[in-house]
Amino acid sequence: MIATNGYAAQSATTPMAPFSYEHREPGETDVLIDVQFCGICHSDIHQARNEWGNSLYPMVPGHEVIGTVAKVGSKVTKFKVGDLVGVGCMVDSCRECLSCREGLEQYCERGQTVFTYNSRDKQGNLTFGGYGSHLVADEAFVLSVPANLDPAAAAPLLCAGITTYSPLKHWNVGPGKKVGIVGLGGLGHMGLKFSHAFGATTALFTTSASKVEDAKRLGADEVILTKEEGWAAKHAGTFDFILDCVSAEHDINTYLSLLKRDGTLCLVGVPEKPLATAAFALVGARKSFAGSMIGGIQETQEMLDFCGKHNIVSDIEMTTFPQVNEAWERVLKSDVKYRFVLDLKTL
Amino acid sequence: MIATNGYAAQSATTPMAPFSYEHREPGETDVLIDVQFCGICHSDIHQARNEWGNSLYPMVPGHEVIGTVAKVGSKVTKFKVGDLVGVGCMVDSCRECLSCREGLEQYCERGQTVFTYNSRDKQGNLTFGGYGSHLVADEAFVLSVPANLDPAAAAPLLCAGITTYSPLKHWNVGPGKKVGIVGLGGLGHMGLKFSHAFGATTALFTTSASKVEDAKRLGADEVILTKEEGWAAKHAGTFDFILDCVSAEHDINTYLSLLKRDGTLCLVGVPEKPLATAAFALVGARKSFAGSMIGGIQETQEMLDFCGKHNIVSDIEMTTFPQVNEAWERVLKSDVKYRFVLDLKTL
Repeated sequence: MIATNGYAAQSATTPMAPFSYEHREPGETDVLIDVQFCGICHSDIHQARNEWGNSLYPMVPGHEVIGTVAKVGSKVTKFKVGDLVGVGCMVDSCRECLSCREGLEQYCERGQTVFTYNSRDKQGNLTFGGYGSHLVADEAFVLSVPANLDPAAAAPLLCAGITTYSPLKHWNVGPGKKVGIVGLGGLGHMGLKFSHAFGATTALFTTSASKVEDAKRLGADEVILTKEEGWAAKHAGTFDFILDCVSAEHDINTYLSLLKRDGTLCLVGVPEKPLATAAFALVGARKSFAGSMIGGIQETQEMLDFCGKHNIVSDIEMTTFPQVNEAWERVLKSDVKYRFVLDLKTL
Repeated sequence: MIATNGYAAQSATTPMAPFSYEHREPGETDVLIDVQFCGICHSDIHQARNEWGNSLYPMVPGHEVIGTVAKVGSKVTKFKVGDLVGVGCMVDSCRECLSCREGLEQYCERGQTVFTYNSRDKQGNLTFGGYGSHLVADEAFVLSVPANLDPAAAAPLLCAGITTYSPLKHWNVGPGKKVGIVGLGGLGHMGLKFSHAFGATTALFTTSASKVEDAKRLGADEVILTKEEGWAAKHAGTFDFILDCVSAEHDINTYLSLLKRDGTLCLVGVPEKPLATAAFALVGARKSFAGSMIGGIQETQEMLDFCGKHNIVSDIEMTTFPQVNEAWERVLKSDVKYRFVLDLKTL
């Protein structure tokens, strides 16, 4: 077994604290990873605090993982010791259903997606994520990270990156398209970068005038302040696609009104309460209100390769394990530009 | 001017009653139609009673119109006197915007769609619909009706028909696809007929066990009773497309749960209140919640030609003008199989 040190939540109400545990000995197709960096995702907090009602303890969060390969199983073909690799939100799935065979393991039709943490692997063992010194995963769920990227800043690509890249690709965002990104946080700032890199005319919707300059630096052609009187009417019917990165309750019908005929608004944030959706907002111009969840392994590799080619990483603030509880509080206040990354050396 | 007799609502609270009025003298590109039959659509009642808040009086409803050409303008090329023709929900639009040029006049981007009644034409005159002896319309918005169809039973094709045909075509319903139709009324019964004719495996969702046999006769391969315990779990993740024909409040998340990954639920009914839509219902398998409104003129002609070829009409109950107020009350109770049609000879 692989002795591992990390930080865990022992219950929904205990703070994150040091914790020692074990990963399985790498099997034939497994890779042992020395974790170097791990991004802090808002869902780490939701799950540690059992806000989605499905938490398993002890919980070692973290699904934006970057590290180097320390050991490979006898049948591993994609990786060798020393390679820079990443692990995202998943470490296994049924691999047999239609979605898995199509490379969409996040939508495994048997519900057998094994998440990187707060999940059980096929042997029934609890999975532990990137807030720990080591990780063991099947090579099929390990990603190759381009050498030219700053490894710390690449960590958030594994969740925030693929979560925004995948729907922008799926709905064919590119030159000639007008795209809106709702909310400038961990997801939104990656959405801006990708939409801009894909060649779309990109607007950011934000309540905060203080974000205008930053949004433009990140790739926005236009910043639309949603606290200004009449802002929505001014932009009605002008967007091909809107990527909605807001996890709080918000008025979805106003954003639907901004779409052109046949336009799509895609949720990637997951507001807790249902969103009141007016029939006329959809029927009036054959609009769609859709959702998307992370992305498959093949597409995650494609995204990382795209980032390598276009030199795209996340804007990050480094933090340390002793400060992780404070960092989480700042995430809850959106007080980070735009993703915290834990340095495993600070364990 | 063309002297016309019909039935009108004079206000939101007055019953339908005889009314004499005039249509414009047919212009160069206009067709004068002797109306023979007109379907009763639920939206006639909504608008006569100002339930959508946009009513103009006196109102002569009716947008499922079948008649014969009595006179044509000097530049009319598509029709000659005696032709069997139809008029649906629209009689004009801007004809210049992208949607109009693409044959989607119902989504006119300048908002200049002129509806067959309760609307103003480009000269500012109130439009009067098919509950009257004559209609004058530009030939560009007049449809040719296949001679082999029963003209009375063809009337509802002009609204209920195209409203269901268009989304089923747009979302590529056909062989190998599993399609659900929610609700068996004027719209739902046409949805069943078209989905079946397109070769899709078709299920009807209904609360009423008494509708099973009829639904099967109309084209359902399966009837799913939504009052049975555990019905939704049994069918979770199995539908490619769901056409939702319900205009009342209902639980949209349950129907979204029935879709496969990448599936679409399309509303054609327009519930008054917003529908509570759970983010997880969409995000979990990249599903879409969409809407669709009638169909363009070109597609309406395509639909009529398809109906001629496949001998598809609406299931109707004939009624008379003196009985129109009673017929409306029965529509409100869903007490009609499945569309009332007014015979203009009863005026």
